[in-house]
Amino acid sequence: MASSDLPPVVRTVQEVRRHLEPLRAEGERIGFVPTMGALHQGHLSLVEACARECDATVVSIFVNPTQFGPHEDYDKYPRSLEKDLEALAPWGVDLVFAPAVEEMYPPGFQTQVLVSGVTELWEGRSRPGHFAGVTTVVAKLFHIVQPHVAYFGHKDYQQSVVVRQMVRDLNLPVEIRVCPTVREEDGLALSSRNAYLSPEQRQQALVLSRSLRLAEQMIQQGQRRTETILAEMKKLYDQQPDVRLDYLAVVEPDSLLPVEEVAGPVVVLTAAWVGQTRLIDNLRVEP
Amino acid sequence: MASSDLPPVVRTVQEVRRHLEPLRAEGERIGFVPTMGALHQGHLSLVEACARECDATVVSIFVNPTQFGPHEDYDKYPRSLEKDLEALAPWGVDLVFAPAVEEMYPPGFQTQVLVSGVTELWEGRSRPGHFAGVTTVVAKLFHIVQPHVAYFGHKDYQQSVVVRQMVRDLNLPVEIRVCPTVREEDGLALSSRNAYLSPEQRQQALVLSRSLRLAEQMIQQGQRRTETILAEMKKLYDQQPDVRLDYLAVVEPDSLLPVEEVAGPVVVLTAAWVGQTRLIDNLRVEP
Repeated sequence: MASSDLPPVVRTVQEVRRHLEPLRAEGERIGFVPTMGALHQGHLSLVEACARECDATVVSIFVNPTQFGPHEDYDKYPRSLEKDLEALAPWGVDLVFAPAVEEMYPPGFQTQVLVSGVTELWEGRSRPGHFAGVTTVVAKLFHIVQPHVAYFGHKDYQQSVVVRQMVRDLNLPVEIRVCPTVREEDGLALSSRNAYLSPEQRQQALVLSRSLRLAEQMIQQGQRRTETILAEMKKLYDQQPDVRLDYLAVVEPDSLLPVEEVAGPVVVLTAAWVGQTRLIDNLRVEP
Repeated sequence: MASSDLPPVVRTVQEVRRHLEPLRAEGERIGFVPTMGALHQGHLSLVEACARECDATVVSIFVNPTQFGPHEDYDKYPRSLEKDLEALAPWGVDLVFAPAVEEMYPPGFQTQVLVSGVTELWEGRSRPGHFAGVTTVVAKLFHIVQPHVAYFGHKDYQQSVVVRQMVRDLNLPVEIRVCPTVREEDGLALSSRNAYLSPEQRQQALVLSRSLRLAEQMIQQGQRRTETILAEMKKLYDQQPDVRLDYLAVVEPDSLLPVEEVAGPVVVLTAAWVGQTRLIDNLRVEP
Protein backbone atom coordinates (compact mmCIF):
# COMPACT_ATOMS: atom_id res chain seq x y z
CA MET A 1 0.00 0.00 0.00
CA ALA A 2 1.76 3.12 -1.21
CA SER A 3 0.69 6.26 0.56
CA SER A 4 -1.33 8.57 -1.63
CA ASP A 5 -3.23 11.85 -1.53
CA LEU A 6 -5.67 12.52 1.28
CA PRO A 7 -9.30 12.05 0.23
CA PRO A 8 -11.43 15.15 -0.41
CA VAL A 9 -13.36 16.28 2.69
CA VAL A 10 -16.66 18.17 2.56
CA ARG A 11 -18.62 19.65 5.43
CA THR A 12 -22.10 20.28 4.03
CA VAL A 13 -24.97 18.21 2.65
CA GLN A 14 -25.03 20.38 -0.45
CA GLU A 15 -21.38 19.62 -1.22
CA VAL A 16 -21.99 15.89 -0.86
CA ARG A 17 -24.85 16.09 -3.36
CA ARG A 18 -22.76 18.18 -5.74
CA HIS A 19 -19.85 15.70 -5.61
CA LEU A 20 -21.96 12.57 -6.03
CA GLU A 21 -24.52 13.80 -8.58
CA PRO A 22 -22.23 13.21 -11.62
CA LEU A 23 -21.15 9.77 -10.33
CA ARG A 24 -24.77 8.74 -9.86
CA ALA A 25 -25.72 10.08 -13.29
CA GLU A 26 -23.02 7.88 -14.84
CA GLY A 27 -24.53 4.84 -13.13
CA GLU A 28 -21.67 4.29 -10.70
CA ARG A 29 -22.36 1.98 -7.77
CA ILE A 30 -21.89 4.10 -4.65
CA GLY A 31 -20.74 2.46 -1.42
CA PHE A 32 -20.94 4.12 1.96
CA VAL A 33 -19.17 3.56 5.27
CA PRO A 34 -20.67 5.62 8.11
CA THR A 35 -18.24 6.09 11.02
CA MET A 36 -17.67 8.22 14.09
CA GLY A 37 -13.97 8.56 13.17
CA ALA A 38 -11.09 7.41 15.42
CA LEU A 39 -10.64 4.89 12.63
CA HIS A 40 -9.03 1.52 13.30
CA GLN A 41 -8.54 -1.65 11.25
CA GLY A 42 -12.18 -2.59 11.86
CA HIS A 43 -13.36 0.54 10.04
CA LEU A 44 -10.69 0.10 7.40
CA SER A 45 -11.88 -3.45 6.67
CA LEU A 46 -15.27 -1.92 5.83
CA VAL A 47 -13.63 0.67 3.60
CA GLU A 48 -11.63 -2.06 1.90
CA ALA A 49 -14.77 -4.14 1.23
CA CYS A 50 -16.53 -1.04 -0.06
CA ALA A 51 -13.68 -0.07 -2.37
CA ARG A 52 -13.53 -3.64 -3.70
CA GLU A 53 -17.27 -3.95 -4.35
CA CYS A 54 -18.28 -0.45 -5.46
CA ASP A 55 -17.31 2.13 -8.05
CA ALA A 56 -17.21 4.98 -5.54
CA THR A 57 -16.50 4.93 -1.81
CA VAL A 58 -17.94 7.54 0.55
CA VAL A 59 -16.97 7.64 4.24
CA SER A 60 -18.72 9.80 6.81
CA ILE A 61 -16.97 10.88 10.01
CA PHE A 62 -19.45 12.28 12.50
CA VAL A 63 -19.51 11.83 16.26
CA ASN A 64 -23.29 11.85 16.52
CA PRO A 65 -24.35 13.49 19.79
CA THR A 66 -27.89 12.07 19.77
CA GLN A 67 -26.74 8.47 20.16
CA PHE A 68 -24.88 9.23 23.41
CA GLY A 69 -26.70 9.30 26.74
CA PRO A 70 -26.35 12.35 29.01
CA HIS A 71 -23.74 10.63 31.20
CA GLU A 72 -21.88 8.88 28.39
CA ASP A 73 -18.57 9.69 26.72
CA TYR A 74 -19.64 12.12 23.96
CA ASP A 75 -17.27 14.84 25.12
CA LYS A 76 -14.23 12.63 25.49
CA TYR A 77 -14.92 10.38 22.47
CA PRO A 78 -11.67 10.40 20.44
CA ARG A 79 -11.61 12.85 17.51
CA SER A 80 -8.69 12.64 15.10
CA LEU A 81 -9.71 13.84 11.64
CA GLU A 82 -6.18 14.34 10.32
CA LYS A 83 -5.08 10.85 11.35
CA ASP A 84 -8.35 9.42 10.00
CA LEU A 85 -7.78 11.01 6.59
CA GLU A 86 -4.25 9.58 6.50
CA ALA A 87 -5.62 6.15 7.36
CA LEU A 88 -8.12 6.43 4.49
CA ALA A 89 -5.56 7.69 1.97
CA PRO A 90 -4.45 4.27 0.61
CA TRP A 91 -8.01 3.15 -0.14
CA GLY A 92 -8.95 5.53 -2.92
CA VAL A 93 -11.84 6.99 -0.97
CA ASP A 94 -13.81 9.32 -3.26
CA LEU A 95 -15.34 11.53 -0.59
CA VAL A 96 -15.25 12.05 3.17
CA PHE A 97 -18.27 13.77 4.70
CA ALA A 98 -17.34 15.32 8.05
CA PRO A 99 -20.19 17.64 9.01
CA ALA A 100 -20.46 19.90 12.04
CA VAL A 101 -23.22 19.09 14.51
CA GLU A 102 -25.16 22.18 13.33
CA GLU A 103 -25.15 20.92 9.75
CA MET A 104 -26.83 17.70 10.83
CA TYR A 105 -29.10 19.17 13.50
CA PRO A 106 -29.91 22.77 12.59
CA PRO A 107 -32.13 24.86 14.89
CA GLY A 108 -35.74 23.62 14.76
CA PHE A 109 -34.76 20.03 14.05
CA GLN A 110 -37.64 17.87 15.34
CA THR A 111 -37.78 14.48 13.56
CA GLN A 112 -36.84 11.01 14.73
CA VAL A 113 -36.79 7.59 13.11
CA LEU A 114 -37.77 5.05 15.75
CA VAL A 115 -37.52 1.28 15.52
CA SER A 116 -39.36 -0.50 18.31
CA GLY A 117 -39.04 -4.14 19.40
CA VAL A 118 -35.47 -5.10 18.66
CA THR A 119 -34.20 -1.74 20.00
CA GLU A 120 -35.69 -2.40 23.43
CA LEU A 121 -33.30 -5.25 24.28
CA TRP A 122 -29.61 -5.36 25.34
CA GLU A 123 -27.89 -2.15 24.23
CA GLY A 124 -31.28 -0.45 24.07
CA ARG A 125 -32.00 -1.32 27.68
CA SER A 126 -28.55 -0.25 28.88
CA ARG A 127 -28.45 2.88 26.74
CA PRO A 128 -31.95 4.43 26.54
CA GLY A 129 -32.33 6.56 23.41
CA HIS A 130 -29.15 5.21 21.84
CA PHE A 131 -30.82 3.45 18.90
CA ALA A 132 -33.19 6.36 18.22
CA GLY A 133 -30.04 8.44 17.73
CA VAL A 134 -28.49 5.77 15.53
CA THR A 135 -31.50 5.16 13.26
CA THR A 136 -32.19 8.87 12.85
CA VAL A 137 -28.62 9.75 11.89
CA VAL A 138 -28.25 6.70 9.63
CA ALA A 139 -31.50 7.58 7.83
CA LYS A 140 -30.21 11.13 7.35
CA LEU A 141 -26.83 9.92 6.09
CA PHE A 142 -28.52 7.48 3.69
CA HIS A 143 -30.63 10.33 2.30
CA ILE A 144 -27.58 12.57 1.98
CA VAL A 145 -25.26 10.05 0.33
CA GLN A 146 -27.95 7.86 -1.37
CA PRO A 147 -25.61 4.88 -1.50
CA HIS A 148 -26.39 1.61 -3.27
CA VAL A 149 -24.63 -0.31 -0.48
CA ALA A 150 -23.69 0.58 3.10
CA TYR A 151 -21.16 -1.23 5.30
CA PHE A 152 -21.48 -1.95 9.01
CA GLY A 153 -19.35 -3.99 11.40
CA HIS A 154 -20.48 -7.22 13.07
CA LYS A 155 -18.91 -5.86 16.27
CA ASP A 156 -21.98 -3.62 16.70
CA TYR A 157 -24.23 -6.57 15.96
CA GLN A 158 -27.46 -5.22 17.42
CA GLN A 159 -26.92 -1.96 15.53
CA SER A 160 -26.71 -3.89 12.28
CA VAL A 161 -29.96 -5.71 13.10
CA VAL A 162 -31.68 -2.43 13.94
CA VAL A 163 -30.44 -0.74 10.75
CA ARG A 164 -31.60 -3.70 8.64
CA GLN A 165 -35.01 -3.51 10.32
CA MET A 166 -35.27 0.21 9.55
CA VAL A 167 -34.18 -0.33 5.94
CA ARG A 168 -36.74 -3.10 5.48
CA ASP A 169 -39.59 -1.24 7.20
CA LEU A 170 -39.00 2.10 5.48
CA ASN A 171 -38.14 0.55 2.08
CA LEU A 172 -34.84 2.41 2.00
CA PRO A 173 -33.21 1.69 -1.38
CA VAL A 174 -29.89 0.53 0.07
CA GLU A 175 -28.26 -2.85 0.59
CA ILE A 176 -26.75 -3.44 4.04
CA ARG A 177 -23.52 -5.42 4.27
CA VAL A 178 -22.19 -6.56 7.63
CA CYS A 179 -18.46 -7.33 7.77
CA PRO A 180 -16.65 -9.52 10.31
CA THR A 181 -15.35 -8.13 13.58
CA VAL A 182 -11.63 -7.39 13.46
CA ARG A 183 -9.69 -8.50 16.55
CA GLU A 184 -6.27 -8.05 18.07
CA GLU A 185 -4.11 -11.19 18.09
CA ASP A 186 -5.20 -11.96 21.64
CA GLY A 187 -8.89 -11.72 20.72
CA LEU A 188 -9.86 -8.21 21.87
CA ALA A 189 -12.37 -6.75 19.41
CA LEU A 190 -11.14 -3.49 17.92
CA SER A 191 -13.03 -0.47 19.22
CA SER A 192 -12.31 3.23 19.27
CA ARG A 193 -13.06 3.02 22.99
CA ASN A 194 -10.11 0.66 23.58
CA ALA A 195 -8.02 3.85 23.57
CA TYR A 196 -9.50 4.64 27.00
CA LEU A 197 -8.00 1.47 28.57
CA SER A 198 -4.87 1.40 30.73
CA PRO A 199 -2.50 -1.53 30.07
CA GLU A 200 -3.99 -3.38 33.08
CA GLN A 201 -7.55 -2.72 31.92
CA ARG A 202 -6.59 -3.76 28.38
CA GLN A 203 -5.61 -7.16 29.86
CA GLN A 204 -8.82 -7.48 31.89
CA ALA A 205 -10.90 -6.56 28.86
CA LEU A 206 -9.93 -9.90 27.28
CA VAL A 207 -12.65 -11.50 29.40
CA LEU A 208 -15.27 -10.38 26.87
CA SER A 209 -13.81 -12.24 23.89
CA ARG A 210 -12.68 -15.19 26.05
CA SER A 211 -16.17 -15.69 27.42
CA LEU A 212 -17.49 -15.70 23.85
CA ARG A 213 -14.91 -18.27 22.75
CA LEU A 214 -15.86 -20.41 25.73
CA ALA A 215 -19.52 -20.31 24.68
CA GLU A 216 -18.50 -21.25 21.15
CA GLN A 217 -16.45 -24.20 22.39
CA MET A 218 -19.24 -25.45 24.61
CA ILE A 219 -21.77 -25.28 21.76
CA GLN A 220 -19.39 -27.00 19.36
CA GLN A 221 -18.82 -29.72 21.95
CA GLY A 222 -22.56 -30.34 22.07
CA GLN A 223 -23.83 -28.18 24.91
CA ARG A 224 -27.32 -26.94 24.05
CA ARG A 225 -28.60 -25.45 27.31
CA THR A 226 -27.90 -21.72 27.34
CA GLU A 227 -28.35 -21.58 31.12
CA THR A 228 -25.29 -23.81 31.47
CA ILE A 229 -23.32 -21.86 28.87
CA LEU A 230 -24.09 -18.51 30.49
CA ALA A 231 -23.16 -19.84 33.94
CA GLU A 232 -19.72 -20.91 32.67
CA MET A 233 -19.20 -17.55 30.93
CA LYS A 234 -20.17 -15.81 34.15
CA LYS A 235 -17.45 -17.70 36.04
CA LEU A 236 -14.83 -16.12 33.76
CA TYR A 237 -16.21 -12.69 34.58
CA ASP A 238 -16.18 -13.51 38.30
CA GLN A 239 -12.40 -13.97 38.06
CA GLN A 240 -12.05 -10.31 36.96
CA PRO A 241 -13.08 -8.24 39.97
CA ASP A 242 -12.47 -4.91 38.16
CA VAL A 243 -14.78 -5.81 35.30
CA ARG A 244 -18.47 -5.12 35.87
CA LEU A 245 -20.66 -7.32 33.68
CA ASP A 246 -23.60 -5.54 32.03
CA TYR A 247 -25.20 -8.42 30.14
CA LEU A 248 -24.53 -11.88 28.70
CA ALA A 249 -27.01 -13.50 26.33
CA VAL A 250 -27.42 -16.22 23.73
CA VAL A 251 -29.94 -14.92 21.22
CA GLU A 252 -31.72 -15.70 17.97
CA PRO A 253 -29.80 -13.76 15.27
CA ASP A 254 -32.75 -11.77 13.82
CA SER A 255 -35.09 -11.10 16.73
CA LEU A 256 -32.29 -10.95 19.33
CA LEU A 257 -34.63 -12.79 21.70
CA PRO A 258 -32.86 -15.12 24.15
CA VAL A 259 -32.98 -18.82 23.34
CA GLU A 260 -33.14 -21.56 25.97
CA GLU A 261 -31.83 -24.35 23.75
CA VAL A 262 -29.30 -23.86 20.95
CA ALA A 263 -31.09 -25.42 17.97
CA GLY A 264 -29.76 -23.27 15.13
CA PRO A 265 -27.42 -20.35 14.59
CA VAL A 266 -27.18 -18.04 17.60
CA VAL A 267 -25.35 -14.88 18.48
CA VAL A 268 -23.68 -14.69 21.87
CA LEU A 269 -23.74 -11.11 23.15
CA THR A 270 -21.87 -9.47 25.98
CA ALA A 271 -21.32 -5.98 27.39
CA ALA A 272 -19.21 -4.98 30.37
CA TRP A 273 -17.60 -2.05 32.09
CA VAL A 274 -13.82 -2.13 32.42
CA GLY A 275 -13.15 0.77 34.76
CA GLN A 276 -15.02 3.74 33.24
CA THR A 277 -15.05 2.16 29.78
CA ARG A 278 -18.05 0.28 28.47
CA LEU A 279 -17.18 -2.41 25.91
CA ILE A 280 -19.34 -4.76 23.84
CA ASP A 281 -18.56 -7.88 21.85
CA ASN A 282 -20.42 -10.76 20.20
CA LEU A 283 -19.89 -13.98 18.31
CA ARG A 284 -22.11 -15.83 15.88
CA VAL A 285 -22.07 -19.57 16.54
CA GLU A 286 -23.61 -22.38 14.49
CA PRO A 287 -24.11 -25.66 16.36
CA MET B 1 -59.38 15.76 -23.02
CA ALA B 2 -59.76 12.65 -25.14
CA SER B 3 -60.12 9.47 -23.14
CA SER B 4 -57.08 7.24 -23.37
CA ASP B 5 -55.66 4.02 -22.01
CA LEU B 6 -55.77 3.34 -18.30
CA PRO B 7 -52.39 3.83 -16.59
CA PRO B 8 -50.38 0.73 -15.62
CA VAL B 9 -51.06 -0.38 -12.05
CA VAL B 10 -48.56 -2.25 -9.89
CA ARG B 11 -49.07 -3.73 -6.45
CA THR B 12 -45.55 -4.34 -5.13
CA VAL B 13 -42.51 -2.27 -4.19
CA GLN B 14 -40.36 -4.45 -6.43
CA GLU B 15 -42.53 -3.71 -9.47
CA VAL B 16 -42.33 0.03 -8.80
CA ARG B 17 -38.53 -0.15 -8.70
CA ARG B 18 -38.44 -2.26 -11.87
CA HIS B 19 -40.68 0.21 -13.73
CA LEU B 20 -38.85 3.34 -12.61
CA GLU B 21 -35.23 2.12 -12.74
CA PRO B 22 -34.84 2.71 -16.51
CA LEU B 23 -36.53 6.13 -16.32
CA ARG B 24 -34.19 7.18 -13.53
CA ALA B 25 -31.16 5.84 -15.40
CA GLU B 26 -32.10 8.03 -18.36
CA GLY B 27 -32.15 11.07 -16.09
CA GLU B 28 -35.91 11.61 -16.25
CA ARG B 29 -37.38 13.94 -13.65
CA ILE B 30 -39.84 11.81 -11.67
CA GLY B 31 -42.88 13.46 -10.08
CA PHE B 32 -45.03 11.79 -7.45
CA VAL B 33 -48.59 12.35 -6.22
CA PRO B 34 -49.39 10.29 -3.11
CA THR B 35 -53.15 9.81 -2.62
CA MET B 36 -55.66 7.68 -0.74
CA GLY B 37 -57.73 7.33 -3.91
CA ALA B 38 -61.36 8.46 -4.23
CA LEU B 39 -59.83 10.98 -6.60
CA HIS B 40 -61.48 14.35 -7.19
CA GLN B 41 -60.46 17.51 -9.02
CA GLY B 42 -58.19 18.45 -6.11
CA HIS B 43 -56.08 15.33 -6.65
CA LEU B 44 -56.26 15.77 -10.41
CA SER B 45 -54.90 19.31 -10.13
CA LEU B 46 -51.83 17.80 -8.45
CA VAL B 47 -51.52 15.21 -11.21
CA GLU B 48 -51.85 17.95 -13.81
CA ALA B 49 -49.08 20.02 -12.17
CA CYS B 50 -46.90 16.93 -11.92
CA ALA B 51 -47.43 15.95 -15.56
CA ARG B 52 -46.65 19.53 -16.63
CA GLU B 53 -43.46 19.85 -14.58
CA CYS B 54 -41.95 16.36 -14.72
CA ASP B 55 -40.90 13.76 -17.28
CA ALA B 56 -42.66 10.91 -15.50
CA THR B 57 -45.73 10.97 -13.23
CA VAL B 58 -46.26 8.37 -10.52
CA VAL B 59 -49.49 8.26 -8.46
CA SER B 60 -49.96 6.11 -5.39
CA ILE B 61 -53.40 5.01 -4.23
CA PHE B 62 -53.27 3.62 -0.71
CA VAL B 63 -55.76 4.07 2.10
CA ASN B 64 -53.16 4.06 4.85
CA PRO B 65 -54.61 2.43 7.98
CA THR B 66 -51.99 3.85 10.35
CA GLN B 67 -53.10 7.45 9.86
CA PHE B 68 -56.67 6.68 10.99
CA GLY B 69 -57.58 6.61 14.67
CA PRO B 70 -59.35 3.56 16.12
CA HIS B 71 -62.78 5.27 15.95
CA GLU B 72 -62.24 7.00 12.62
CA ASP B 73 -63.54 6.19 9.14
CA TYR B 74 -60.87 3.79 7.84
CA ASP B 75 -63.40 1.05 7.10
CA LYS B 76 -65.88 3.25 5.30
CA TYR B 77 -63.34 5.49 3.55
CA PRO B 78 -64.35 5.47 -0.15
CA ARG B 79 -62.41 3.02 -2.33
CA SER B 80 -62.92 3.22 -6.09
CA LEU B 81 -59.82 2.02 -7.92
CA GLU B 82 -61.53 1.52 -11.30
CA LYS B 83 -63.03 5.01 -11.27
CA ASP B 84 -59.71 6.44 -10.07
CA LEU B 85 -57.82 4.86 -12.95
CA GLU B 86 -60.35 6.27 -15.41
CA ALA B 87 -59.94 9.70 -13.85
CA LEU B 88 -56.16 9.43 -14.29
CA ALA B 89 -56.32 8.16 -17.87
CA PRO B 90 -56.24 11.58 -19.62
CA TRP B 91 -53.13 12.73 -17.77
CA GLY B 92 -50.51 10.37 -19.17
CA VAL B 93 -49.70 8.90 -15.79
CA ASP B 94 -46.72 6.57 -16.12
CA LEU B 95 -47.40 4.37 -13.13
CA VAL B 96 -50.01 3.85 -10.41
CA PHE B 97 -48.83 2.14 -7.24
CA ALA B 98 -51.79 0.58 -5.40
CA PRO B 99 -50.34 -1.72 -2.76
CA ALA B 100 -52.21 -3.98 -0.36
CA VAL B 101 -51.84 -3.17 3.33
CA GLU B 102 -49.62 -6.26 3.78
CA GLU B 103 -47.20 -4.99 1.13
CA MET B 104 -46.70 -1.76 3.06
CA TYR B 105 -46.84 -3.24 6.57
CA PRO B 106 -45.62 -6.83 6.46
CA PRO B 107 -45.55 -8.91 9.65
CA GLY B 108 -42.83 -7.68 11.99
CA PHE B 109 -43.07 -4.08 10.82
CA GLN B 110 -41.81 -1.91 13.71
CA THR B 111 -40.51 1.46 12.50
CA GLN B 112 -41.98 4.94 12.71
CA VAL B 113 -40.93 8.36 11.49
CA LEU B 114 -41.99 10.90 14.09
CA VAL B 115 -42.02 14.66 13.75
CA SER B 116 -42.56 16.44 17.04
CA GLY B 117 -43.54 20.09 17.62
CA VAL B 118 -45.68 21.03 14.66
CA THR B 119 -47.52 17.67 14.79
CA GLU B 120 -48.76 18.33 18.31
CA LEU B 121 -51.09 21.18 17.32
CA TRP B 122 -54.53 21.26 15.60
CA GLU B 123 -55.02 18.05 13.61
CA GLY B 124 -52.42 16.36 15.79
CA ARG B 125 -54.33 17.24 18.94
CA SER B 126 -57.69 16.15 17.49
CA ARG B 127 -56.30 13.02 15.85
CA PRO B 128 -53.60 11.49 18.08
CA GLY B 129 -51.17 9.36 16.05
CA HIS B 130 -52.46 10.70 12.73
CA PHE B 131 -49.26 12.46 11.70
CA ALA B 132 -47.03 9.57 12.80
CA GLY B 133 -49.02 7.48 10.32
CA VAL B 134 -48.67 10.15 7.65
CA THR B 135 -44.93 10.77 8.01
CA THR B 136 -44.13 7.07 8.18
CA VAL B 137 -46.11 6.19 5.06
CA VAL B 138 -44.85 9.23 3.14
CA ALA B 139 -41.23 8.36 4.02
CA LYS B 140 -41.87 4.80 2.81
CA LEU B 141 -43.50 6.02 -0.42
CA PHE B 142 -40.63 8.46 -1.04
CA HIS B 143 -38.13 5.60 -0.64
CA ILE B 144 -40.15 3.36 -2.93
CA VAL B 145 -40.74 5.88 -5.72
CA GLN B 146 -37.62 8.07 -5.15
CA PRO B 147 -39.24 11.05 -6.84
CA HIS B 148 -37.48 14.31 -7.60
CA VAL B 149 -40.68 16.23 -6.74
CA ALA B 150 -43.78 15.35 -4.76
CA TYR B 151 -47.13 17.15 -4.85
CA PHE B 152 -49.42 17.86 -1.91
CA GLY B 153 -52.62 19.88 -1.59
CA HIS B 154 -52.93 23.11 0.38
CA LYS B 155 -56.25 21.73 1.68
CA ASP B 156 -54.28 19.50 4.10
CA TYR B 157 -52.14 22.45 5.07
CA GLN B 158 -50.74 21.12 8.32
CA GLN B 159 -49.84 17.87 6.58
CA SER B 160 -47.80 19.80 4.04
CA VAL B 161 -45.97 21.63 6.84
CA VAL B 162 -45.27 18.35 8.64
CA VAL B 163 -44.01 16.67 5.45
CA ARG B 164 -41.74 19.62 4.67
CA GLN B 165 -40.36 19.45 8.22
CA MET B 166 -39.64 15.73 7.83
CA VAL B 167 -37.99 16.27 4.45
CA ARG B 168 -35.80 19.03 5.83
CA ASP B 169 -34.86 17.19 9.04
CA LEU B 170 -34.12 13.84 7.38
CA ASN B 171 -32.45 15.39 4.29
CA LEU B 172 -34.83 13.53 2.00
CA PRO B 173 -33.74 14.25 -1.58
CA VAL B 174 -37.17 15.40 -2.78
CA GLU B 175 -38.73 18.78 -3.51
CA ILE B 176 -42.17 19.37 -1.99
CA ARG B 177 -44.71 21.33 -4.01
CA VAL B 178 -47.97 22.47 -2.45
CA CYS B 179 -50.82 23.23 -4.88
CA PRO B 180 -53.88 25.40 -4.24
CA THR B 181 -57.05 24.01 -2.71
CA VAL B 182 -59.70 23.24 -5.32
CA ARG B 183 -63.21 24.34 -4.36
CA GLU B 184 -66.77 23.86 -5.55
CA GLU B 185 -68.37 26.99 -7.01
CA ASP B 186 -69.99 27.76 -3.65
CA GLY B 187 -66.64 27.54 -1.84
CA LEU B 188 -66.71 24.03 -0.33
CA ALA B 189 -63.19 22.59 -0.43
CA LEU B 190 -63.07 19.33 -2.38
CA SER B 191 -62.55 16.31 -0.13
CA SER B 192 -63.10 12.61 -0.58
CA ARG B 193 -65.08 12.82 2.66
CA ASN B 194 -67.65 15.17 1.09
CA ALA B 195 -69.17 11.97 -0.32
CA TYR B 196 -70.40 11.18 3.21
CA LEU B 197 -72.57 14.34 3.35
CA SER B 198 -76.35 14.40 2.83
CA PRO B 199 -77.63 17.32 0.73
CA GLU B 200 -78.59 19.15 3.94
CA GLN B 201 -75.18 18.52 5.50
CA ARG B 202 -73.51 19.57 2.25
CA GLN B 203 -75.24 22.95 2.67
CA GLN B 204 -74.27 23.27 6.34
CA ALA B 205 -70.67 22.38 5.51
CA LEU B 206 -70.33 25.71 3.70
CA VAL B 207 -69.77 27.33 7.08
CA LEU B 208 -66.10 26.22 7.00
CA SER B 209 -65.17 28.07 3.82
CA ARG B 210 -67.49 31.00 4.63
CA SER B 211 -65.84 31.53 8.00
CA LEU B 212 -62.45 31.55 6.28
CA ARG B 213 -63.60 34.11 3.73
CA LEU B 214 -64.94 36.23 6.55
CA ALA B 215 -61.54 36.15 8.25
CA GLU B 216 -59.88 37.09 4.97
CA GLN B 217 -62.25 40.03 4.48
CA MET B 218 -61.69 41.29 8.00
CA ILE B 219 -57.91 41.14 7.62
CA GLN B 220 -58.03 42.85 4.24
CA GLN B 221 -60.21 45.57 5.75
CA GLY B 222 -57.54 46.20 8.37
CA GLN B 223 -58.55 44.05 11.33
CA ARG B 224 -55.39 42.81 13.06
CA ARG B 225 -56.65 41.32 16.34
CA THR B 226 -57.17 37.60 15.88
CA GLU B 227 -59.39 37.45 18.95
CA THR B 228 -61.90 39.68 17.15
CA ILE B 229 -61.58 37.72 13.90
CA LEU B 230 -62.10 34.37 15.62
CA ALA B 231 -65.13 35.71 17.53
CA GLU B 232 -66.79 36.76 14.26
CA MET B 233 -66.00 33.40 12.62
CA LYS B 234 -67.46 31.67 15.66
CA LYS B 235 -70.75 33.53 15.20
CA LEU B 236 -71.13 31.95 11.74
CA TYR B 237 -70.66 28.51 13.30
CA ASP B 238 -73.20 29.34 16.02
CA GLN B 239 -75.81 29.78 13.28
CA GLN B 240 -75.33 26.12 12.24
CA PRO B 241 -76.59 24.05 15.15
CA ASP B 242 -75.83 20.73 13.42
CA VAL B 243 -72.18 21.64 12.88
CA ARG B 244 -69.85 20.97 15.79
CA LEU B 245 -66.77 23.17 15.67
CA ASP B 246 -63.48 21.41 16.46
CA TYR B 247 -61.03 24.31 16.15
CA LEU B 248 -60.56 27.75 14.63
CA ALA B 249 -57.13 29.39 14.56
CA VAL B 250 -55.09 32.12 12.93
CA VAL B 251 -51.52 30.84 12.78
CA GLU B 252 -48.03 31.62 11.59
CA PRO B 253 -47.59 29.66 8.30
CA ASP B 254 -44.42 27.69 9.25
CA SER B 255 -44.69 27.02 12.98
CA LEU B 256 -48.51 26.87 12.99
CA LEU B 257 -48.40 28.72 16.31
CA PRO B 258 -51.36 31.03 16.91
CA VAL B 259 -50.73 34.74 16.39
CA GLU B 260 -52.40 37.46 18.41
CA GLU B 261 -51.84 40.24 15.90
CA VAL B 262 -51.82 39.76 12.14
CA ALA B 263 -48.50 41.34 11.15
CA GLY B 264 -47.53 39.18 8.16
CA PRO B 265 -48.89 36.24 6.19
CA VAL B 266 -51.09 33.94 8.25
CA VAL B 267 -53.03 30.77 7.66
CA VAL B 268 -56.55 30.58 9.02
CA LEU B 269 -57.38 27.00 10.00
CA THR B 270 -60.66 25.34 10.81
CA ALA B 271 -62.01 21.85 11.49
CA ALA B 272 -65.58 20.83 12.26
CA TRP B 273 -67.92 17.90 12.43
CA VAL B 274 -70.92 17.95 10.11
CA GLY B 275 -72.98 15.05 11.38
CA GLN B 276 -70.56 12.10 11.54
CA THR B 277 -68.21 13.67 9.01
CA ARG B 278 -65.12 15.57 10.07
CA LEU B 279 -64.04 18.26 7.60
CA ILE B 280 -61.07 20.63 7.54
CA ASP B 281 -60.30 23.74 5.54
CA ASN B 282 -57.83 26.63 5.59
CA LEU B 283 -56.95 29.85 3.83
CA ARG B 284 -53.67 31.71 3.55
CA VAL B 285 -54.15 35.45 4.00
CA GLU B 286 -51.64 38.24 3.53
CA PRO B 287 -52.56 41.52 5.23
